[in-house]
Amino acid sequence: MIRFDLNPRLEGDSLPVADLPLCAVRLMKDANYPWLLLIPRQSDLVEITDLAPEDRLQLMTEIATCAETLKGITGCDKINIGALGNVVSQLHVHVIARFRSDAAWPGPVWGAAPATPYEPAAQERLVDALRARLIA
Amino acid sequence: MIRFDLNPRLEGDSLPVADLPLCAVRLMKDANYPWLLLIPRQSDLVEITDLAPEDRLQLMTEIATCAETLKGITGCDKINIGALGNVVSQLHVHVIARFRSDAAWPGPVWGAAPATPYEPAAQERLVDALRARLIA
Repeated sequence: MIRFDLNPRLEGDSLPVADLPLCAVRLMKDANYPWLLLIPRQSDLVEITDLAPEDRLQLMTEIATCAETLKGITGCDKINIGALGNVVSQLHVHVIARFRSDAAWPGPVWGAAPATPYEPAAQERLVDALRARLIA
Repeated sequence: MIRFDLNPRLEGDSLPVADLPLCAVRLMKDANYPWLLLIPRQSDLVEITDLAPEDRLQLMTEIATCAETLKGITGCDKINIGALGNVVSQLHVHVIARFRSDAAWPGPVWGAAPATPYEPAAQERLVDALRARLIA
């Protein structure tokens, strides 16, 4: 069995949505943007190139699934995808639904606006909708 | 033959390095960070999900190749990867060598510091080194 420890900051900033074959998918607790984190459930990963080649391809498949799911649910103007890891080194990929009206447009979301909590019912509806499509 | 027009802003901000099977690889004219652009040579692409599924996997392979090449040449502290496209919609992927000492660390590079031209000999050395590894 592979040990998988989620970084405490990633865990605190997000909520569990679904487990795909490679990644844990989590929703950032930030109502400014519908924003998913994909975290491969393997230990000691920092760069995408730390994944085995076949897992890199699975990561791309899961990024595309999350992008299409977010686009389908939100009708966003653009999807932003990023793997930065300058602050939290554990490998994680951001898949973010962007709107021309959002708090950071057209800039990147990182460091742009303070996280705003979801209204609880809206958060539950979004998590349920994401889960229904991702687990289907 | 597939028509492929490079967006004028992407073209003006960067220099050609190499053609991989899917993407044109270009170096951003910004000495703040060794920074590659990967642009799939197909028309009318905006999102990664506009690529056929097999081309998405090829894109991941080429991202990993560029990441390993940049890391090998520069000895950087971290690779940043991003597909944003909020300003220039033509699909392009950033693969950036980051250093703890660089102008934007630990933030993202986009919008952080004005582009600084390379000293011509340094630019030529970097392009030659990239080309030698990417075309090998």
